[in-house]
Amino acid sequence: MPRKSTIGSYLVKRLEEAGLRQIFGVPGDYVLWFYDLLEESSIEVIGTCTEGGAGFAADAYARVHGLGAICVTYCVGGFNALNPVAGAYAEKSPLIVISGSPGMAERSKSPLLHHQVRGFNTQHLIFDQVCVASAVLEDPDLVPDQIDGTIMECLKRKRPVYLEIPRDMVHVPCPSPKPLSIQREKSDRAVLKEALHEATEMLKSSKRPVILAGVEIHRYGLQESLLKLVKGSRFPVAATILGKSVISENHPEYIGVYEGAMGKESVRMVVEGADCVLILGAFMTDINLGINTAQIDLSKTINATSEKISIKRHHYDGIVLRDFIEGLAKADLGAKKRRRLPSMPEPKPFKPVPSKPMTIRRFFQRINQFLEEDSVVVCDIGDSLFGAIDLRIHKRTEFLSPAYYTSMGFAIPAALGVQIGSKKLRPIVFVGDGAFQMTFQELSTIARHGLNPIVFVLNNKGYTTERFINEGPYNDIKEWAYHKLPALLQDGWSCEVQTEGDLEEALEQARNQKVYSLINVHLEKMDHSEALARLGKRLSKSVGKG
Amino acid sequence: MPRKSTIGSYLVKRLEEAGLRQIFGVPGDYVLWFYDLLEESSIEVIGTCTEGGAGFAADAYARVHGLGAICVTYCVGGFNALNPVAGAYAEKSPLIVISGSPGMAERSKSPLLHHQVRGFNTQHLIFDQVCVASAVLEDPDLVPDQIDGTIMECLKRKRPVYLEIPRDMVHVPCPSPKPLSIQREKSDRAVLKEALHEATEMLKSSKRPVILAGVEIHRYGLQESLLKLVKGSRFPVAATILGKSVISENHPEYIGVYEGAMGKESVRMVVEGADCVLILGAFMTDINLGINTAQIDLSKTINATSEKISIKRHHYDGIVLRDFIEGLAKADLGAKKRRRLPSMPEPKPFKPVPSKPMTIRRFFQRINQFLEEDSVVVCDIGDSLFGAIDLRIHKRTEFLSPAYYTSMGFAIPAALGVQIGSKKLRPIVFVGDGAFQMTFQELSTIARHGLNPIVFVLNNKGYTTERFINEGPYNDIKEWAYHKLPALLQDGWSCEVQTEGDLEEALEQARNQKVYSLINVHLEKMDHSEALARLGKRLSKSVGKG
Repeated sequence: MPRKSTIGSYLVKRLEEAGLRQIFGVPGDYVLWFYDLLEESSIEVIGTCTEGGAGFAADAYARVHGLGAICVTYCVGGFNALNPVAGAYAEKSPLIVISGSPGMAERSKSPLLHHQVRGFNTQHLIFDQVCVASAVLEDPDLVPDQIDGTIMECLKRKRPVYLEIPRDMVHVPCPSPKPLSIQREKSDRAVLKEALHEATEMLKSSKRPVILAGVEIHRYGLQESLLKLVKGSRFPVAATILGKSVISENHPEYIGVYEGAMGKESVRMVVEGADCVLILGAFMTDINLGINTAQIDLSKTINATSEKISIKRHHYDGIVLRDFIEGLAKADLGAKKRRRLPSMPEPKPFKPVPSKPMTIRRFFQRINQFLEEDSVVVCDIGDSLFGAIDLRIHKRTEFLSPAYYTSMGFAIPAALGVQIGSKKLRPIVFVGDGAFQMTFQELSTIARHGLNPIVFVLNNKGYTTERFINEGPYNDIKEWAYHKLPALLQDGWSCEVQTEGDLEEALEQARNQKVYSLINVHLEKMDHSEALARLGKRLSKSVGKG
Repeated sequence: MPRKSTIGSYLVKRLEEAGLRQIFGVPGDYVLWFYDLLEESSIEVIGTCTEGGAGFAADAYARVHGLGAICVTYCVGGFNALNPVAGAYAEKSPLIVISGSPGMAERSKSPLLHHQVRGFNTQHLIFDQVCVASAVLEDPDLVPDQIDGTIMECLKRKRPVYLEIPRDMVHVPCPSPKPLSIQREKSDRAVLKEALHEATEMLKSSKRPVILAGVEIHRYGLQESLLKLVKGSRFPVAATILGKSVISENHPEYIGVYEGAMGKESVRMVVEGADCVLILGAFMTDINLGINTAQIDLSKTINATSEKISIKRHHYDGIVLRDFIEGLAKADLGAKKRRRLPSMPEPKPFKPVPSKPMTIRRFFQRINQFLEEDSVVVCDIGDSLFGAIDLRIHKRTEFLSPAYYTSMGFAIPAALGVQIGSKKLRPIVFVGDGAFQMTFQELSTIARHGLNPIVFVLNNKGYTTERFINEGPYNDIKEWAYHKLPALLQDGWSCEVQTEGDLEEALEQARNQKVYSLINVHLEKMDHSEALARLGKRLSKSVGKG
């Protein structure tokens, strides 16, 4: 084998070939040599304030662009990114974690190297728990298969992988990369045929079928296939919370987000009243199921994910989700007989009452008419998410949230990740004050790169979601003058909103900003969306005291 | 067994008995019921902005007060605290991690619960890598032994432990606590006698002995024992970086911090020129050893830690460190024959040149005369640490730093932890701009509790330590107007320092503040302490490119 490559250059080449244009991270001495290689490559290094910020940014970048990556130093760096990487695992976001580590030679020389915790494999063991593949690049002959295999697993399973490079291995020669071949997965034809036959018969004979679409439609790029299926079948389509916006919310067959008794009654009635529910690429999580208020009869479901296809109570393995959806799209599912359900009503025109204090409900009603074609809605958790569920998203993939893993602090770094990948997109960000205090420093990174998201801090003076579950003094936080942040960061535009009139003025001004906008939206402590009130009630009951 | 206790109340009682007065954390729905129990207890809950901040605060609290604890929610909470907990493991700080988790009953009802990553044991498996003991409290009959055993391990080994409570187990009855008996460890008398005999002979016959004292002297409360030994033997004493301040730096036998060729030449000559080095409670880490520039001949060492005693190249097990040090203190080590080494020179009086731009060297020279009896120096890494090494610390345990694990972002939350435990102490905090941007939000928590640390942001516009290892654009960060922070937080006092005259004014004003002081110290990008220049040179060589 010719040895023109080095371990570091091999990895960089594969990252470039996989389509990575930016990488997020914080440098540290165990990873500096690899940073030098990145600087020489076509990949732009986006330095964040924290590794946690890098992790959320790369997760969001991956959700919009198909693959994301972070590059961090050993332990003190990697561990700070563990939570976002775990979130990417939970919500299926393809993320490559690259970490430096102590050089192989220095490990024997010194008994205890800085940043070390227990053993040299501690970080690897930990990331193995939140990744679908991992490798430590310490043997040049194994490196090509390790790198190729690990990146392939990331792309195939849409979950994080981990690559660790001891710092003295970066410039060690290794075999040159072969031409990259991304193998497309194939279905077992016989199994596919049988499953399609059964599903087709079931759907064709159903009188009130419905599609429940989940986030894998987006992750596996199946939006076109879904559209074909919907067009051919005229089935109404609901989305899960995590899958919100996998189909345009202006689509005539789209009926809204389904979340059991937590969500809109009109959607619940269609889904739970269906005689056949075709679930496509959805995780059956507690949040997606409206904290277990969903009433879907298993004997009426066809549940297809990237991992398996289940019809009623039996399962088919070896079927690629795309083949299943496209197979159904080609089948005759009896579209002609079907009556069309009323699609989502147009939102009523919003008329501001200038002197009226702002409430969360009125806020989201107004925002619904502020969204434009280039808007990407990015939500943190709590009412930032629940209040945003009824926003009508214009295009596909324009709604990002940590709706299942529900980690606070996602939104600000996620906005960075979205807009770094495409400056044409404009993030519209909703974040509670508690979540904002966790990761807002990435607005510094946003400012540094000249990005212009519009950030609404829903300032209700504490962890209001928790107030509805269990009130206690621990739910209070210190109120900041959030609108003073631009003075600290020496960049950005901000204002305060107390009333509906203030909001009109703020939107008007924010729309034209070339810098980030930070809008401090003052809300009553117990103001809330209807969804939040229902959620709190349900959560506090589900594990009531004593 | 009488069943008056519940699992939650049992744990709270043991925490109280172990002397815990405050606990740090961020609430979340899986841990709210346990938070209610804490609210009813004598333990004060200190809510932080992030779980990472809670971790560093509790670590520092533990270093000053003997035991610290955090209480967080499942995965999204716990994982954010992993890095500080790993740091507490690396640097031996006794920290209890308490985490809520999904209830046992709800696990079977729902396929995927929010905050879940892979399995229900994922967080436990991960924390097992950075803790010396752990338990999931799911069986009421096992709980008493689990809680007692885990807390004992924490106190004995001075490292983190992990306790997880499924949320529906908090109010489940369990056997009542028995009277708490903390067993003092005992040495094997025969082994102790033999080791003491050998060590005594070796020390007695040495002509140029020296003690090198490490951080375990502080962790195990052995300062009095060390003082007795020094008084009786008249041996000169050096400290490791991590152990700096385990003996008062005004003590006549104290000669300074030893760190190989990285540190002061006068200290290096005494330690490396000794014919017997008595190392007490020190980790032999790369940083403590001056990035492997230390030249200590193993055949001349007695190396005693809490884990084992080594003399030359052989080892004794089963000896308690305290017994060994106290045994030596009672022995005749030939003090009378010894000449006394010159102790540390008094710092020269500092004369400010008002118009002179501030430099890091002059800054620390000035600060050396600003420290008072109630000062606790808290350092972040980089020049915040290296520049501070030569500060003369007045009392014991008044110098805190992550000198081995070297995680950025330690100092601000650590200052919170120090002063929450004792409002009589006043943290003097040194933190670089890069580290400040990582965790500065805990100044909000500091303000909320009316604490008044003095924080110096050593503002050199980037990761200057890394510039000395490997310069690249990734070492630049965005400059903030750090002194504008009080406006954002609506609390605090701040100013800017450009010159020596400014610093005089700043110190004068900060001294009398009842709120936190934030002093933005402007420094040249490449300004540095001598130690940093030496360190960078050494680190960049040790793993040179290619």
